[in-house]
Amino acid sequence: MITEQDLGDWRRTHYSSQVNDSQIGQLTVLMGWISSKRDHGNVLFIQLRDRFGDTQIVAKKEKDLENNIFEVLKNLKEHSSIGIKGKVVGQKKSPNGVEVIPHEIKVLSVSTKSAPFLTQSVSTIGIDTRLELRALDLRRNYLQNVFRIRFTILKSVREFLTKNYFIEVNTPKMISTATEGGAALFPIFYYDKEAFLAQSPQLYKEQLTMAFENVFEIAPIFRAEPSRTNRHLSEAISIDVEKAFVNYYDIMDLLDELISYIILRIKDENPNELKNLEIELSELKIPFPRYTYSELIDKLQKNHKYIRWGDDISPKILKDVIGDGFYYIVDWPLSTKPFYVKSKGNSDIAISKPNPSFVTSENNSIMVSESFDLMYGPLELSSGSTRINNKSVLLDNMKKKGLNPAAFDYHLRIFDYGIPPHAGFGLGLERLLMALLKIENIRDATFYPRDIDRLTP
Amino acid sequence: MITEQDLGDWRRTHYSSQVNDSQIGQLTVLMGWISSKRDHGNVLFIQLRDRFGDTQIVAKKEKDLENNIFEVLKNLKEHSSIGIKGKVVGQKKSPNGVEVIPHEIKVLSVSTKSAPFLTQSVSTIGIDTRLELRALDLRRNYLQNVFRIRFTILKSVREFLTKNYFIEVNTPKMISTATEGGAALFPIFYYDKEAFLAQSPQLYKEQLTMAFENVFEIAPIFRAEPSRTNRHLSEAISIDVEKAFVNYYDIMDLLDELISYIILRIKDENPNELKNLEIELSELKIPFPRYTYSELIDKLQKNHKYIRWGDDISPKILKDVIGDGFYYIVDWPLSTKPFYVKSKGNSDIAISKPNPSFVTSENNSIMVSESFDLMYGPLELSSGSTRINNKSVLLDNMKKKGLNPAAFDYHLRIFDYGIPPHAGFGLGLERLLMALLKIENIRDATFYPRDIDRLTP
Repeated sequence: MITEQDLGDWRRTHYSSQVNDSQIGQLTVLMGWISSKRDHGNVLFIQLRDRFGDTQIVAKKEKDLENNIFEVLKNLKEHSSIGIKGKVVGQKKSPNGVEVIPHEIKVLSVSTKSAPFLTQSVSTIGIDTRLELRALDLRRNYLQNVFRIRFTILKSVREFLTKNYFIEVNTPKMISTATEGGAALFPIFYYDKEAFLAQSPQLYKEQLTMAFENVFEIAPIFRAEPSRTNRHLSEAISIDVEKAFVNYYDIMDLLDELISYIILRIKDENPNELKNLEIELSELKIPFPRYTYSELIDKLQKNHKYIRWGDDISPKILKDVIGDGFYYIVDWPLSTKPFYVKSKGNSDIAISKPNPSFVTSENNSIMVSESFDLMYGPLELSSGSTRINNKSVLLDNMKKKGLNPAAFDYHLRIFDYGIPPHAGFGLGLERLLMALLKIENIRDATFYPRDIDRLTP
Repeated sequence: MITEQDLGDWRRTHYSSQVNDSQIGQLTVLMGWISSKRDHGNVLFIQLRDRFGDTQIVAKKEKDLENNIFEVLKNLKEHSSIGIKGKVVGQKKSPNGVEVIPHEIKVLSVSTKSAPFLTQSVSTIGIDTRLELRALDLRRNYLQNVFRIRFTILKSVREFLTKNYFIEVNTPKMISTATEGGAALFPIFYYDKEAFLAQSPQLYKEQLTMAFENVFEIAPIFRAEPSRTNRHLSEAISIDVEKAFVNYYDIMDLLDELISYIILRIKDENPNELKNLEIELSELKIPFPRYTYSELIDKLQKNHKYIRWGDDISPKILKDVIGDGFYYIVDWPLSTKPFYVKSKGNSDIAISKPNPSFVTSENNSIMVSESFDLMYGPLELSSGSTRINNKSVLLDNMKKKGLNPAAFDYHLRIFDYGIPPHAGFGLGLERLLMALLKIENIRDATFYPRDIDRLTP
């Protein structure tokens, strides 16, 4: 049994990335966890890992008369946290040209069990087993690379939007009414009232264009998805953007540039992570292709006779007509979109020349909306639109969708005070990460996933 | 009745901040809302406000034969959103040296009602009336200044932590067990299970030090506060920081530097906002004073004989012994702190020389914790501590606090795998904003406040 020690006055002097051959002969204090261990009988090679990588620690039995370091290290399991005071010596075989000979050790936290998966392997074991020990799982190289790139995405989104005169806002997650109708809501007990978790910051970000013009929020959204798929979460991070005095075309331009910027920044900041993940991010050609909903339906009807104008388009059949990469599906039927989405054409007039396919539709409404979905192959990443900024049109639409305007009174009253024309999008952070890094299961694009079966850890 | 028009192909060519005397004689397209209007009979002076400020639009009746601009502007209420195509002309009396003569107008959104408060006044009306029209309220100069500074705080926190090798994380807000015990939780229906909204990301951020060492999260926290005060919200934004291989002293040093950095950045980025708010932020002397809980109790007991060691210290009586500004209260009784807070001294041994005041205490436990509260005058801004990273000590503490370890199994199991020593803090964004900008009511430090009485807008 090895005793754990308090940190006391020990402090790290260098991260692993700061230890190099300029320090040969000097003393260093390193801290981290044992990521691997090779036992050559009288010599132990320990990889001590910190936030930036590994440093090799070499402990020899013969030198161990005084301070017992060899014996302690020999008995410590991988994942244990330790501090090492030692001397930096040259080692040509080591990636950073050095290794460290320990003079003193501090055992900070003993791993009493053996981890059920290897740090080095991409995926050796079912995701549910990994999720049961998620914090340990997140030590794996694969996820370390994923989550460092995730951080770059967050940074670059904020950089880009700040440069483009956006202001970051936070809107309430506990709300009184459903934004998109009643489905897939989590109910809460709010003191003595019924309330819900926000499925999106939609109405709030729209309102805020009134005061701040260009707003964004990066925050959790909550959807009681009944489905078990590899691309749905019950709690996800949404990048929400809303801008005044523009329409959905401007917003698609903005989104094109945002995605391009993110990719440039990842290439710049995470070349090693991309290499480790064997991902090549090519620079993007923008604008991304924009296909109208109607032209896609036309194409799809050639091989899928049952498809009607007005139907949703399932990801599976999209593969038949579209390749990989980023593209938009624009001008969706108004009937498929939420109440706040603007219809295309002035004053809610239906489009003038209905596509022949419309005639085959059972759906009488051939109204088209100023809307888009940003896709990556079959994966929907973002939805956006021009929003209605006229109170009577909005009221009308609510009624058509079967919503009770009284429940939205707190929202509608704002429309009496000159709310500007505006448009925006919501972009799923985890979905974007999946697309960029070819992640199979969205659960590996978030730290602690939530779904119908999982509420812990 | 004035008809609203579609945005069509009109786009802003300049923000107000970009209009200046280098453009005299040129055409410009401005968009925004009417922040004020002066009617001089045959001449109208309109302040057109956008994200960056006002531009003066001057409409003369005599020039209005063709396009009716004068009549339209005359009839538009303040707050209406419009677009103006016009010519930039010199005007020495105007702050930016120019004004704009409109050639064409587009009425984008008509304000049909008169706002119940003035944009220019600091507070003319009760906060509840303002909150009922919050998006409109947020157009007020006062709140515009507050929320621009809020954005600077968010930016500077992220800059500072990123420079200090922290990574941004997101942890789930729907959780299975209470972090700090059962009080003040919002229950949720999670599919067929009972769940709660997270009061803090505490246990998750602790776990994540295992994989990422230095983590931060800026996200909503949810507390079912039964109290009606000017400093509590049911939903607030918490800046949560957790760092491996350090203790609470290191964390206080970090927090000192963070607050100093925030203030420097605000002074740099928001000189005008500070001037408008009549706030002078002086550069801070760090480290902030650190008073031990015991010495404060000693001092307080001189005038408040009923106070015992072990009691919480109420903000009101703190005024008697402490001035304004930032300071810490450190080394709180272990009994006042949550189960994950480390006791002071090795291996949970009680401090060796109890202060005489302890003897007067009814509380038998004289154990002190490695903890701090960061205060600003009587306002608590942040709480932090060294955390327990040993499983058996943690288990023991849970039992002492009456918690059921089985409910924390998902957390405890991580402690079998070498979780490093760590420490951290949670800092309330709204509280910090209150302290820095002398905001009386915390509701004005957030966009859409939530409290026991308020769930909308």
